[in-house]
Amino acid sequence: MPISDRDENLDQATEIHPKHRYSPIRRGGLEVPETEITLDDSPTGPNEPFYTYRTRGPECDVTEGLAGLRSEWIEERGDTETYEGRAEHPLDDGRPRLQASPESRWRGTNRPPRRATEGRRVTQMHYARRGIVTKEMEFVALREHTTPEHVRSEVAKGRAIIPNNVNHPESEPMIIGRKFLTKINANIGNSAVTSSIEEEVSKLRWATRWGADTVMDLSTGKDIHTTREWILRNSPVPIGTVPIYQALEKVGGEAEKLTWEIFRDTVIEQCEQGVDYMTIHAGVRLPFVPLTTKRVTGIVSRGGSIMAGWCLAHHKESFLYENFDELCEIFARYDVAFSLGDGLRPGCLADANDAAQFAELKTIGELTHRAWEHDVQVMVEGPGHVPLDKVQVNNEKEQEWCGDAPFYTLGPLATDIAPGYDHITSAIGAATIAMGGTAMLCYVTPKEHLGLPNRDDVKTGVITYKIAAHAADVAKGHPGARAWDDAMSKARFEFRWNDQFALSLDPETAQAYHDETLPAEPAKTAHFCSMCGPKFCSMRISQDIRDTFTETLGMPGIVPDEVARVAEPADAEAGMARKSREFRERGSNIYLREDHGDN
Amino acid sequence: MPISDRDENLDQATEIHPKHRYSPIRRGGLEVPETEITLDDSPTGPNEPFYTYRTRGPECDVTEGLAGLRSEWIEERGDTETYEGRAEHPLDDGRPRLQASPESRWRGTNRPPRRATEGRRVTQMHYARRGIVTKEMEFVALREHTTPEHVRSEVAKGRAIIPNNVNHPESEPMIIGRKFLTKINANIGNSAVTSSIEEEVSKLRWATRWGADTVMDLSTGKDIHTTREWILRNSPVPIGTVPIYQALEKVGGEAEKLTWEIFRDTVIEQCEQGVDYMTIHAGVRLPFVPLTTKRVTGIVSRGGSIMAGWCLAHHKESFLYENFDELCEIFARYDVAFSLGDGLRPGCLADANDAAQFAELKTIGELTHRAWEHDVQVMVEGPGHVPLDKVQVNNEKEQEWCGDAPFYTLGPLATDIAPGYDHITSAIGAATIAMGGTAMLCYVTPKEHLGLPNRDDVKTGVITYKIAAHAADVAKGHPGARAWDDAMSKARFEFRWNDQFALSLDPETAQAYHDETLPAEPAKTAHFCSMCGPKFCSMRISQDIRDTFTETLGMPGIVPDEVARVAEPADAEAGMARKSREFRERGSNIYLREDHGDN
Repeated sequence: MPISDRDENLDQATEIHPKHRYSPIRRGGLEVPETEITLDDSPTGPNEPFYTYRTRGPECDVTEGLAGLRSEWIEERGDTETYEGRAEHPLDDGRPRLQASPESRWRGTNRPPRRATEGRRVTQMHYARRGIVTKEMEFVALREHTTPEHVRSEVAKGRAIIPNNVNHPESEPMIIGRKFLTKINANIGNSAVTSSIEEEVSKLRWATRWGADTVMDLSTGKDIHTTREWILRNSPVPIGTVPIYQALEKVGGEAEKLTWEIFRDTVIEQCEQGVDYMTIHAGVRLPFVPLTTKRVTGIVSRGGSIMAGWCLAHHKESFLYENFDELCEIFARYDVAFSLGDGLRPGCLADANDAAQFAELKTIGELTHRAWEHDVQVMVEGPGHVPLDKVQVNNEKEQEWCGDAPFYTLGPLATDIAPGYDHITSAIGAATIAMGGTAMLCYVTPKEHLGLPNRDDVKTGVITYKIAAHAADVAKGHPGARAWDDAMSKARFEFRWNDQFALSLDPETAQAYHDETLPAEPAKTAHFCSMCGPKFCSMRISQDIRDTFTETLGMPGIVPDEVARVAEPADAEAGMARKSREFRERGSNIYLREDHGDN
Repeated sequence: MPISDRDENLDQATEIHPKHRYSPIRRGGLEVPETEITLDDSPTGPNEPFYTYRTRGPECDVTEGLAGLRSEWIEERGDTETYEGRAEHPLDDGRPRLQASPESRWRGTNRPPRRATEGRRVTQMHYARRGIVTKEMEFVALREHTTPEHVRSEVAKGRAIIPNNVNHPESEPMIIGRKFLTKINANIGNSAVTSSIEEEVSKLRWATRWGADTVMDLSTGKDIHTTREWILRNSPVPIGTVPIYQALEKVGGEAEKLTWEIFRDTVIEQCEQGVDYMTIHAGVRLPFVPLTTKRVTGIVSRGGSIMAGWCLAHHKESFLYENFDELCEIFARYDVAFSLGDGLRPGCLADANDAAQFAELKTIGELTHRAWEHDVQVMVEGPGHVPLDKVQVNNEKEQEWCGDAPFYTLGPLATDIAPGYDHITSAIGAATIAMGGTAMLCYVTPKEHLGLPNRDDVKTGVITYKIAAHAADVAKGHPGARAWDDAMSKARFEFRWNDQFALSLDPETAQAYHDETLPAEPAKTAHFCSMCGPKFCSMRISQDIRDTFTETLGMPGIVPDEVARVAEPADAEAGMARKSREFRERGSNIYLREDHGDN
């Protein structure tokens, strides 16, 4: 299917809201994207603009692709080489009948593949451990408002990762680790049943527009290789994949026909394209498979069941587990990060935290340490479906067994009974697990368990997970996190409606809902809302209460001792007559006096 | 505005799903509503129907009202009398320009008001403390699948309430307490800006259809008295109100003109109509008002700010606090429960758990114990907006200071930055606080802070809060709670799609989402879903793994020792060759063989 050269929905409104402006931090030759939100004046004076973390840079023509922001940095390090690369294979795009038409092929920027020169490692962890602060670390430090040394130190310890394949120079460096802002991932990708390249690229841009920090391309349908090329060349965020999905397509969908060689070739194909992190289900070992037979929902991870199927068919140990060190060597040459997949994660509350899940997690811990011996960055995937009382132990065991590698969970869903609302069932679990130390949350859309998400679902999933991540950042006391809530609350108290819309995660929905009840433009500056109406408003009364105390006593924003004493019942009688008089003299102005015709 | 005699949306589908059936528990002359959900057969045999708690009985003609289920029980106790009742006052429906047209008046069942005979108390707490198990307690016990004695004991201790005004005999008894299922409340009600009686009655039926356990009528616009009459006569769930809202309308919206006499008269008006619980902001004491001046959002509770405004205008202690004992005497004669309002609850994260909030909570504790001296049932309202790390201390302080009276919270919202999604920001907080012991959750709709909820918003709010409540019940290990999740998960594993829809909180949305990707009827029984497609499915592989082990070893559903040993790596080699052969002999049947045309 041909790709249109304009994404109309995005072009119509490059920024999310008229008060939003791309306003990068420029320092030391770096340009780190941020959004500036202009705020109206308060009654007490002007407000500084508010700046938010932004996961998309300036936009590009989708047929050209983004500029290679990191190309120079990578070249300057002088430890990589370009090379001819793996030959294309007809099966790279899937089985013949599913392959793309020629006009859908990528025709934008085409860089030769790059890798570490023989014997070198080019991972951020490698540099960090040697005390080198890379440009990527500086970029991340500016983005997170912390020091480059803090970033370096966390990456060196394995407690954070900067997923940045040298073949994805378009990607703006970001960090995943529990000392940093909680990140969210959005899954996109076609399936054998439905969807096109165009839709997937559009979903990528849409997801990052609303704040996805990374995107996983989980395509299993047609044009797998070509779809991924379009996605990578247009993605300012790291791209993750599950290479076993593509490998499976190459063997006609029959897991037992998979071999280490086909898998390794697929991994190299994806390394050369620029995939930043790959889910590898190397913890699904043959001996663990029988542990799943008592389960209510068995194995629900696609990758997990592929590997379990292979292990059973051959009655051999997993080729991923057996060849893990070779995988590490490959990843170290491109700086691909492991996302060690939880192929035995629970698919329902009943199966949470069971022997199979924890046997795999312990193995993942072993593999984490092996990857670190190769300086390869690692994050660890987690569940899934977990009752709230069993959530925190997942963080604890992950931190203990996996040496504090960043934890990356799918939800977890806190109940199984609400298909159609699993963005919500899982946001509850996600906020809870992130508060306890999980570094990245994989979003769940309303279509989970039911169908493939469309653009609306992607947006709902992303916004819902921004909520969960931010709620956790606030709860963890992450520096600066609550400033956003406070800016919103101040705007709310002062009836700066347009600022409330601009500061919200989804300005257009907030404004649309306000318009439904009070569509008129004056309502956006009115000192009331539809809940109380113009005659009476609790916010307004609060302001009057504040005015009463501050005007009388001349100390705005502070409760002076004299007033504070009133708080003691014993002293209350004293000033009452005077205060009552003062209040009435001010016109007892606790209600709005505007006449709106009906009172 | 005239009320239509049919609610078309409800009549079109009396039950939520074709597999749902009104199937009450009938015992000892009681008929306790439950929904029976018919399930399809599993491959291993038929499934018992699944039964769920149901908050609506059989439906009625909205112009007639429901039958008085409890009328006989109340009369039989012989401790009440009917009487002439308070004379109607033109201001009962609000200010003259806002009053209803004559044709909207209630013309259905009209019972004379009833109250305790002089000197008697007719509260469920009164009976419970004297060892009497009422019909209401028996009904509740059947509903909650527990013993009447357990219900009586919890009510006697004040740890649970059964809100049941003797003038609302239509109400089906339900219990609010942390040893029982977590309940949810839906707010409805018009405002000065918008909406009609018809809409409000429709929202009541809609809210209970989706599972609201109680409904609060927060009307502040026109026809206040008449709207409430329509709601009460049609409500199978307890109705709560905030009587200060109506009292304020009677004095033209000017808080300083409020008097204890006007308020008391309004309370009696509502007692006679049948309101089951009333929010009373008696904890907003004059000395606490100055504690709010340093806040980011001051006082956000409407009732709280009315009382704060009154206290400031008169510089007197709150008339609610001063006359609390008289209120208790009134409530004891009708069995109205207190919902002690948190008028100083935080309106943003920044204000959470501050001095004003906790000063009020401590006072509410004092008032709780005073109400209990009158045998009056009490629940305590809680916040609001609270960061997740500060949630649990709210439960702890409430339990300590308020003697374990049931806690009833509004959310709390875990972040302020997502207007338009506050059902979600608050469901995260709500699940967390309910897991820690909160007994009832007041829903928040997507329109919170922005506008008045319409029917869709009410439904979204209710379903979202059913999720939060159920997630908490599962986490608390409430007996039987997880059975629902397990029934769903089993249906999911067995691809019983129609059962998955029927078992979900919102069957129509679940099915609609499934239809979007796979609309054909055969897809509802297909052993695959749109995520993996027909060729490959992880659930299917899991089933095959299970079959491999169980068929080979003949012990379905159990992992025998022989298999369990395979889980130990040391023993793994032993059975491998044999197992591999067996698996292949079965045709290596880990994929579907159906031909769907494209593979």
